[in-house]
Amino acid sequence: MRAYRFDSFDSLEELRLREEADPAPQRGEVLVRVHAVSLNFRDIAMLRGRYPRKCVPGLIPVSDAAGEIVALGEGVQAFKVGDRVLGAFHPRWFGGEMPSTIASDSYGAESDGWLCEFKAISQEAVVRLPEGLSYEEACTLPCAGLTAWTALTGPAPIRAGHTVLVQGSGGVSIFALQLARATGATVIATTSSAAKADQLRALGAAEVVNYADDPEWGKAVRALSGGRGVDRVVEVGGPGTIAQSLRAVALGGEIASIGFLSTENPGIDFFQLKMSGASFRNITVGDRAGLLELTRVVAATGLKPVIDRVFAFGEAHDAFSHLERGGHMGKVVIRVS
Amino acid sequence: MRAYRFDSFDSLEELRLREEADPAPQRGEVLVRVHAVSLNFRDIAMLRGRYPRKCVPGLIPVSDAAGEIVALGEGVQAFKVGDRVLGAFHPRWFGGEMPSTIASDSYGAESDGWLCEFKAISQEAVVRLPEGLSYEEACTLPCAGLTAWTALTGPAPIRAGHTVLVQGSGGVSIFALQLARATGATVIATTSSAAKADQLRALGAAEVVNYADDPEWGKAVRALSGGRGVDRVVEVGGPGTIAQSLRAVALGGEIASIGFLSTENPGIDFFQLKMSGASFRNITVGDRAGLLELTRVVAATGLKPVIDRVFAFGEAHDAFSHLERGGHMGKVVIRVS
Amino acid sequence: MRAYRFDSFDSLEELRLREEADPAPQRGEVLVRVHAVSLNFRDIAMLRGRYPRKCVPGLIPVSDAAGEIVALGEGVQAFKVGDRVLGAFHPRWFGGEMPSTIASDSYGAESDGWLCEFKAISQEAVVRLPEGLSYEEACTLPCAGLTAWTALTGPAPIRAGHTVLVQGSGGVSIFALQLARATGATVIATTSSAAKADQLRALGAAEVVNYADDPEWGKAVRALSGGRGVDRVVEVGGPGTIAQSLRAVALGGEIASIGFLSTENPGIDFFQLKMSGASFRNITVGDRAGLLELTRVVAATGLKPVIDRVFAFGEAHDAFSHLERGGHMGKVVIRVS
Amino acid sequence: MRAYRFDSFDSLEELRLREEADPAPQRGEVLVRVHAVSLNFRDIAMLRGRYPRKCVPGLIPVSDAAGEIVALGEGVQAFKVGDRVLGAFHPRWFGGEMPSTIASDSYGAESDGWLCEFKAISQEAVVRLPEGLSYEEACTLPCAGLTAWTALTGPAPIRAGHTVLVQGSGGVSIFALQLARATGATVIATTSSAAKADQLRALGAAEVVNYADDPEWGKAVRALSGGRGVDRVVEVGGPGTIAQSLRAVALGGEIASIGFLSTENPGIDFFQLKMSGASFRNITVGDRAGLLELTRVVAATGLKPVIDRVFAFGEAHDAFSHLERGGHMGKVVIRVS
Repeated sequence: MRAYRFDSFDSLEELRLREEADPAPQRGEVLVRVHAVSLNFRDIAMLRGRYPRKCVPGLIPVSDAAGEIVALGEGVQAFKVGDRVLGAFHPRWFGGEMPSTIASDSYGAESDGWLCEFKAISQEAVVRLPEGLSYEEACTLPCAGLTAWTALTGPAPIRAGHTVLVQGSGGVSIFALQLARATGATVIATTSSAAKADQLRALGAAEVVNYADDPEWGKAVRALSGGRGVDRVVEVGGPGTIAQSLRAVALGGEIASIGFLSTENPGIDFFQLKMSGASFRNITVGDRAGLLELTRVVAATGLKPVIDRVFAFGEAHDAFSHLERGGHMGKVVIRVS
Repeated sequence: MRAYRFDSFDSLEELRLREEADPAPQRGEVLVRVHAVSLNFRDIAMLRGRYPRKCVPGLIPVSDAAGEIVALGEGVQAFKVGDRVLGAFHPRWFGGEMPSTIASDSYGAESDGWLCEFKAISQEAVVRLPEGLSYEEACTLPCAGLTAWTALTGPAPIRAGHTVLVQGSGGVSIFALQLARATGATVIATTSSAAKADQLRALGAAEVVNYADDPEWGKAVRALSGGRGVDRVVEVGGPGTIAQSLRAVALGGEIASIGFLSTENPGIDFFQLKMSGASFRNITVGDRAGLLELTRVVAATGLKPVIDRVFAFGEAHDAFSHLERGGHMGKVVIRVS
Repeated sequence: MRAYRFDSFDSLEELRLREEADPAPQRGEVLVRVHAVSLNFRDIAMLRGRYPRKCVPGLIPVSDAAGEIVALGEGVQAFKVGDRVLGAFHPRWFGGEMPSTIASDSYGAESDGWLCEFKAISQEAVVRLPEGLSYEEACTLPCAGLTAWTALTGPAPIRAGHTVLVQGSGGVSIFALQLARATGATVIATTSSAAKADQLRALGAAEVVNYADDPEWGKAVRALSGGRGVDRVVEVGGPGTIAQSLRAVALGGEIASIGFLSTENPGIDFFQLKMSGASFRNITVGDRAGLLELTRVVAATGLKPVIDRVFAFGEAHDAFSHLERGGHMGKVVIRVS
Repeated sequence: MRAYRFDSFDSLEELRLREEADPAPQRGEVLVRVHAVSLNFRDIAMLRGRYPRKCVPGLIPVSDAAGEIVALGEGVQAFKVGDRVLGAFHPRWFGGEMPSTIASDSYGAESDGWLCEFKAISQEAVVRLPEGLSYEEACTLPCAGLTAWTALTGPAPIRAGHTVLVQGSGGVSIFALQLARATGATVIATTSSAAKADQLRALGAAEVVNYADDPEWGKAVRALSGGRGVDRVVEVGGPGTIAQSLRAVALGGEIASIGFLSTENPGIDFFQLKMSGASFRNITVGDRAGLLELTRVVAATGLKPVIDRVFAFGEAHDAFSHLERGGHMGKVVIRVS
């Protein structure tokens, strides 16, 4: 089979395609023919040496994939050949507390990821695709889709009647918009572009605020929620946006903190956090039970993941560069086979 | 003011309209000009001596109302004159465990209800109307609307991706259909009429099963849910439908038991309940916190309560008779002023 | 290694000890040297042909075990040689909804169980022992311990201040008593023996009711809870005890239904269930996330599982016979090595 | 009756005892003979002009009280004369979202509090005393007790097996220690005094860290929790302690933020909050449903509130001064009658 591997983290050129032996499934494993993968900022961060954990050189990158089971190891009864599956982002976090050994299972950083044609993997690390999705659509769910779902659920889940703030038009934000709409919530979105504002409205945003025009956009969002504030902020900006997010959130609401896209780090004012009356919750993608829930939601509601662009397997460098440049709307996908 | 009172429980003729002194609000109370009330089966049950608790003669009947605040008692700061409000079905169940004194607050059975022109009542026993609803629409929420919401929420709330079974086209069932749709769930409905099947589909039911044609409708419902069974049954039939509901429900699903419309009582087979793998939960309308949630859901999603027919204040006997005859779709309302 | 297998289900004599090749761990697996197993009624039910699912002949029986990891398959990073582990009762139910393929993983019925000296098993199907427990103590947790924990938790968990009813002195009931005490709940227990009543009090039961003396024991339990009823019934009797359990349970309480030890089947009166105002929830042991919680609770609170008697590996027939005769207090254990 | 009122906020001397007419209960109200009140830092903050909301001059101070019902207004059926009751800290927050009008009900700041001999109050604003407590003990529950309970519960409640960090020996911290122990959790406490360390251990703290000796006490706490971090921090220090609290908390744990006793305000480092993997939740005492839960927990577990000192009604100035000086262990109480 063919597989991409990173030997060092200096430049995109270090991502090299190789011919390798096909893997074989052992007991309790399935062999997956990979059809599509999607890229996340963490893939770029690893490459650029900005990932918070040390990465092992020589690994296959990319955490998110969809494919078809082509062979079964001994004793596998949960799947059959031909089943269409997704990989779980955290292959060994099944529910409850995150296991302390989870780092050793980080695809692309500590173990081989999915930018290859075949993968032999534990039956516990894959779940069925939602009906009605192509491989290209489905491969966007494991990281971006589940992160958005975890941000909307958790110990105090969003429900019909709530208001959700999403920031920008990256993969997580778009999923959060779609999933919040699917649960009956009202969505307010931010963007810096009039064209994207239209797209966000078309996806179901009730209101869009242009943060480039209004640096005090948190106040604007609060006003748009009837003065009450939003019940949930799906916060991807991090240190650069948290102060406005705290202005936007309702008493008793929650900031679900995912990313730190901004590079400034002004800190959080304790009293602003205190006086918001809201909660702050750190999101780390989510567990397998959440991924199973997400696939049910997607299948039942007919949600279609938004794909910015699909690249061919030979165009992996272009796909990474495209993501790195920014400005995309939704997910960047590589078709493997 | 004018008020209807029941002196005995022998016939509808005992419901008599009287002239009475207008009530005055005391400290912590509001004076409500009643605009509309809606009727429930419990109102008929009281009249016919079939209500499970002893009713006090001479009371004003009807538990559900909407109106306008026309005067404030001393110290009321939560409301102002002109506010549009709903009464809570349980005026003193605010959240947490049902208080043991709740029976003494049962409108129409143990204390005066709302079929009158003015009512002085504790500010804690009313909540604001959802924006966008008329008084006729809003007065359907306190019992039927909240019962449906409680049945869909509770300790294990329905969410997007789940499947819900509703039975027939009474007030609770129609609200359950609409609220389940508002939360992103898929709805399967039962009916005995082709015309009502069309109406149920128009309200959002994905599938409708005619139980008159198919006494094994539980099996049919399970098949329509992909063989898995439904996540929630909003069970209004009681002893006559529970066996089919147990066939329809998924492993890990829940039967939210509301009513006992059927008159037969064959009992529940222990092993059928055990082997269903589902839970059974008794619903008693719901508390004030739930009513507040419901008003938010209704306002935010634009849900419109389904009204079968509106009667004038002078036509109260006709309204009761209409409800008693059955065959309605949605709620029966009396416009008071 | 030596292993017990059942060739048919006619008599205990069909349980035969054999010499077999030692298993070897494959990728993602650990090799466990089994030190102790505990027996459950399901083990007897299989043997007597009374298990609700068809059992495969020739399998190694017993679902619950504790042992030591003596070798690792390729790629296992979560464990190291020397780690002390428990098997999960449902080896592939990790959290969320029970998977539909779970039957194929039922130890002793559809796949090899643990009454043997070594077992090669997926790293996902074992968890660490709670500190402070011996293998004999720890092997009682996977089925009886987790069943009790699931019964006390679930969507509406028991908390300090609640009252719990446990029935008799089998393994699940004793664990429920101990775990309820560990969470600050008050426990009422039933028994038919004065000697056991003393033991139940010594374990922390605040009140003990002798059901042999008082067939209306449900009423007695309600009285002992101050007339309110108990918040949770850990119901192991099934059809023969449910009517009294419904008398004992509080409005808003829950019957967690585990077993059906009684042989009569009078059915459940719909109106008794309705008027109880309580919920009924079916328990099927529990998932891996729950087992991890349980091991933390046991380690942190110093809970010591109650063992009725420990048999040697060669005395397996005697151990089964002892369990079958009944009258034990706590768990029956076989020491394997 | 006699009542204390504050005419201005300049000095303790402005707190003056007056003779006033006895209040009379109106419809839905009860007349309470106040027996004991307890003091909180907010009472001092009001007096010193440091309360975050504007206070109305001339009000009766103090939010927390216990007393006996001596007369009933019309229509009160939930209570009878002789019932022993507590006031709720938020008299109109019953459950669910905090009402926006809550400020107008703030005892001592916007409406008359409890430092008086009689109070006529809505039946919805009081709850029964837990059995087994004196008025002096019970009057400590409405603010300090409920704050601690809310901090330990919330959307992700503490349970048996968890570890809780409490800071110092103020009223909330002592209640948090006792309530965490009552739920089966393990407690680590901080203090600056060896004598208090002994008292904290006697109350059930498994470990005590002297923060005066070790400015890096967060690291020490983490080590004492086996390197994992604590599941919950009951955080009363605010800006001055948050950085150490973030070191002490587990991945997936929660900081329940109550106070801001420290006067420095260094801000929160965004990346420290992010990398903690924990949640931050703001606590505002709690609602009536929580107070009812608390009274059950206290009654069932026999928890005895820790009282630092009881003052006579005529010694109110001394009681305030005593609290202001600090150094107390548990609550400061005034016996009213």
